Amino acid sequence: MKYPKGIVKHQTNEKNVIYGNRGMRLEQDLNLTNEYYRENDIAYIYKKPTPIKVTKVDYPSRKSAIIKEALFEMPSTTDYNGIYQGKYIDFEAKETTHKTAFPLANIHHHQIEHMRHILEHRGICFLIVRFTVLNQTYLLPGEDLFSFLETAQRKSVPLSYFMEKGYLIRDKIKPRVDYLQVIDQIYGGVKPCKKEMENKA
Amino acid sequence: MKYPKGIVKHQTNEKNVIYGNRGMRLEQDLNLTNEYYRENDIAYIYKKPTPIKVTKVDYPSRKSAIIKEALFEMPSTTDYNGIYQGKYIDFEAKETTHKTAFPLANIHHHQIEHMRHILEHRGICFLIVRFTVLNQTYLLPGEDLFSFLETAQRKSVPLSYFMEKGYLIRDKIKPRVDYLQVIDQIYGGVKPCKKEMENKA
Repeated sequence: MKYPKGIVKHQTNEKNVIYGNRGMRLEQDLNLTNEYYRENDIAYIYKKPTPIKVTKVDYPSRKSAIIKEALFEMPSTTDYNGIYQGKYIDFEAKETTHKTAFPLANIHHHQIEHMRHILEHRGICFLIVRFTVLNQTYLLPGEDLFSFLETAQRKSVPLSYFMEKGYLIRDKIKPRVDYLQVIDQIYGGVKPCKKEMENKA
Repeated sequence: MKYPKGIVKHQTNEKNVIYGNRGMRLEQDLNLTNEYYRENDIAYIYKKPTPIKVTKVDYPSRKSAIIKEALFEMPSTTDYNGIYQGKYIDFEAKETTHKTAFPLANIHHHQIEHMRHILEHRGICFLIVRFTVLNQTYLLPGEDLFSFLETAQRKSVPLSYFMEKGYLIRDKIKPRVDYLQVIDQIYGGVKPCKKEMENKA
């Protein structure tokens, strides 16, 4: 495990956002993981803000604005993207309470199409799925997701497929969900960044 | 100029979003440009949604949610990112009514820091600035922005610097602001995508 040297920053930016039932724990873990990657100069990957359509705004003063009415919109891309060692990274993350399969209804059709385009344009694209009841988190490469979609008639990806084609991401302390370790494993031979090496020394 | 063959899609997704005075025309032009790039399978570059902190939500039914109070948050990254020919693309776009210089106060400190990291990690990063009164739109490569920041004591980038180091993006019909043409020019030798070649034929 890699621990950052020196003073540990307090994570004070857990935002007071309302998520409903949309897999908040995995999202929090990934936010902390991405923060860790940034603080250690490993990768710059961010969650995109939730798209919101603002319909009414109050301007009590020139500098402040309070939104008085707005609606959640459907995202047209995946939630996470950024850069890692010169490579374009793009992924969607979902939690499921199902124990034996991940229902594909969890991912919108245009998100699937987006992922297809990213792969065609030589980006690194994948799915992170957490089976909350089993407490198992898998990374499924986009290529394997599309192999499944092309051949299977099923509306959910069985857990066995994640076990066979995906990569189990083990819980760690820092970073919590070290998905880039899996990316290194798949795409191999990528040099660690300078700062990461300093931390290891 | 490249015109797409066949039926021209109607652009019906200009969203009813409230922008205030934050350079909406350039943003609209860039949204149409990115849409053109996507429809022609040239690049997948999106504007990130405006970050909004939701503080009150009404759930009139299980499927719908109306936001009753929310605040605009400061973005921690640039507004646009995506993939072009396997490369990570990242940029910020701003309009100014100034005629002789672009005030750097228009870009937040953490956006500048973000751009620095992207360059260090071998992404393609730049600024698009439109001088609205002059009706001139420039692409300034990130490298040149940082050269300026390192040497200049000024709090604005003079127009002459954009003219010397930047690239004027000429108005076109489709796509409106063809910034990837400039990227091709700077980074050269990048093969056009299949569909683009079909359109040219």
